[in-house]
Amino acid sequence: MADPIINFSPGPGVVARPVIEQAAQALLGVSELRGLSIVEISHRLPFFEKIVADTKARLAKLLAIPDTHDVLFLQGGARTQFAQIPLNWLVPGKSAAYVETGVWSEGAIEEARASVGGGSVNVIASGRASNYTELPSLAGITLPADTAYVHTTSNNTIYGTQWHPMPDFVREERTALAPGDFVREERTALAPGDFVRAGGERVPHLSDMSSDILSRPLDVSRFAMIYAGAQKNAGISGVTLIIIDKAFMEAARRDIPSIWQYRVMAANDSLYNTPPTFAIYCTNLVCQWLEGEGGVEAIAARNRRKASALYGAIDGSDGFYRANIQTRAHRSEMNVTFRLPTPELDTRFVAEGEEAGLHHMKGHRKAGGIRVSLYNAVPESGVERLIAFMGRFARAHHAHHAGR
Amino acid sequence: MADPIINFSPGPGVVARPVIEQAAQALLGVSELRGLSIVEISHRLPFFEKIVADTKARLAKLLAIPDTHDVLFLQGGARTQFAQIPLNWLVPGKSAAYVETGVWSEGAIEEARASVGGGSVNVIASGRASNYTELPSLAGITLPADTAYVHTTSNNTIYGTQWHPMPDFVREERTALAPGDFVREERTALAPGDFVRAGGERVPHLSDMSSDILSRPLDVSRFAMIYAGAQKNAGISGVTLIIIDKAFMEAARRDIPSIWQYRVMAANDSLYNTPPTFAIYCTNLVCQWLEGEGGVEAIAARNRRKASALYGAIDGSDGFYRANIQTRAHRSEMNVTFRLPTPELDTRFVAEGEEAGLHHMKGHRKAGGIRVSLYNAVPESGVERLIAFMGRFARAHHAHHAGR
Repeated sequence: MADPIINFSPGPGVVARPVIEQAAQALLGVSELRGLSIVEISHRLPFFEKIVADTKARLAKLLAIPDTHDVLFLQGGARTQFAQIPLNWLVPGKSAAYVETGVWSEGAIEEARASVGGGSVNVIASGRASNYTELPSLAGITLPADTAYVHTTSNNTIYGTQWHPMPDFVREERTALAPGDFVREERTALAPGDFVRAGGERVPHLSDMSSDILSRPLDVSRFAMIYAGAQKNAGISGVTLIIIDKAFMEAARRDIPSIWQYRVMAANDSLYNTPPTFAIYCTNLVCQWLEGEGGVEAIAARNRRKASALYGAIDGSDGFYRANIQTRAHRSEMNVTFRLPTPELDTRFVAEGEEAGLHHMKGHRKAGGIRVSLYNAVPESGVERLIAFMGRFARAHHAHHAGR
Repeated sequence: MADPIINFSPGPGVVARPVIEQAAQALLGVSELRGLSIVEISHRLPFFEKIVADTKARLAKLLAIPDTHDVLFLQGGARTQFAQIPLNWLVPGKSAAYVETGVWSEGAIEEARASVGGGSVNVIASGRASNYTELPSLAGITLPADTAYVHTTSNNTIYGTQWHPMPDFVREERTALAPGDFVREERTALAPGDFVRAGGERVPHLSDMSSDILSRPLDVSRFAMIYAGAQKNAGISGVTLIIIDKAFMEAARRDIPSIWQYRVMAANDSLYNTPPTFAIYCTNLVCQWLEGEGGVEAIAARNRRKASALYGAIDGSDGFYRANIQTRAHRSEMNVTFRLPTPELDTRFVAEGEEAGLHHMKGHRKAGGIRVSLYNAVPESGVERLIAFMGRFARAHHAHHAGR
């Protein structure tokens, strides 16, 4: 039997085989539904309500989501969230602070600027000058007191950068002397990593985690909202996971259409209108699979091993393979990007990789080169096969290259 | 072998068996993808782009969609359209005219009133006084000249009413004598059915056809926009079909988030962001199935036979079964609602029906009684079995009832 295909697709990405098989079984017929397909029943049946509740409970356990937060299943992908977030919180007189780390951040900023709700948008840090091969420094940044929220992108699929750990945003208050008066000034100090101060109030931090949710443990309590299209680590395309602080949710506008109010969706357990039932069911199966793999800690350890082996092979290739992201602390464990000595060799690498059963490694056109996506369901054996292939490919072409 | 289950679910509803089986096959693996699942590949692959183009082409053929119109695949269901439509066209200084025929129209009106774009909302006709058991008359209604669009709901799932045929809205111009001046007044005459006047300009007519799209032929050219959640006649939940007049689309606001601009989605062939790939694929399979059944004309004839047999059984039951909708011209061919002499008998009918393999006939709580949904994939043999069951049930309980 031939080696199985390894799927390094950037997304929609690889889904664990047991999930695919169980989903196909439920599609063909569910015995509890007397053989009807899971896609041909009302979402109002207790059968489906239980799936929603069970999926919420499994996600809550996997990510240690505190009671302060709710879990919602919406539609429209992260891009819809880019627009829905400012509609809810970026009201006139408020501003929103965006950290720009790639195309998805740019999209979030673009939609916030087009927000029909009002308010203003500040890009407080940007990696644009490095073509997003570096995460911007957040040290010493001051936020205006009217900041409604800070927005980040946890992992940048196109370029291959990722925050380790996620930045934290804590408001400090100090008293500043201003000409002619004492002004009580609010400042917000921003730095990567964990620097919560006792009694420090957090600026609401919203993060697009579409490409790394469930790939590593998270302190959910630090986030006002986390959102993620499911199609990388959490299921199939068509459902967006939302983890939201209930108090933050309640503070949103209520004079907007109900379908765009998170509180309305929460009050209806994500069943306000017909949800994407099959996609939610697939997320449920992914949670079950993840539990069987040992949970998020175990998958995170595996993800670190996979990424570290691959970066090791790149860095140890005598320059034949060159990582796009040189700052190791910024490297993504989900999307590893690199290039070969020439674009021709990039193309050949992708083609010969496919012949060897290693699929979907072509880099995004904005970054070029190679992109290997190592989502949760990519097995370690797949990475080992890739590394062996890289060794063979380098040996076959290195001399040729060195001779150029 | 036992008789197959007949699924009268109001939605998500029955899906034709060949569609389920082909979808399950593609979920397990596609040979053109070297065995990868259809859900684990990028929507940017030519393989998937072809599915989108092919689904558009099949829908265009099935519904005879003219070149003036485009087909889009969006997310969020009809309820999202309730909000997205006024955001695009209901600008300050304009009004929108809504025909209220049930809970879904009410939702559309509610979201339009909450629109962040401005403008005003007129309910030009309502069946509310009859608890929506009657469609309102549209005769003699005058629309203000600032009307941006008229909105209707083609079929009302909860109550069981449907427009036959869809109303048409044509603007007539006349010159009225006003005190002191000649005022050029614009009037719009509305009547059910086809009364296009030569040279008459149509008021943009937008219709929610979630529960009867693809069930009967349509003159698409008469509509500025048709939209439908797919989960009744066009696939599974998670994708919304949009058929939109390109000129109307281009006339929409451009100062709103791009994800909510129809023109942006059209310019990107519905691949602006990650689409619900599996749901779109299922719509493709439904189109193929429908072609095999002879197309929309053939399915419409079958739907008429199914509904007419069932209404015949109800009306011919000596009052044991009583149709909720007494005006025959208003009766839905998709959702047949009726009641038995007592609520206890309704409950018993549903329970004994399930024992006989006839599933999901419980009426919506707002209407009570029984609701039998006869979407395209419900076979005629299923309706025959239901009618036979109704006869047996009536004979068993009629005497009892008559004796009360």
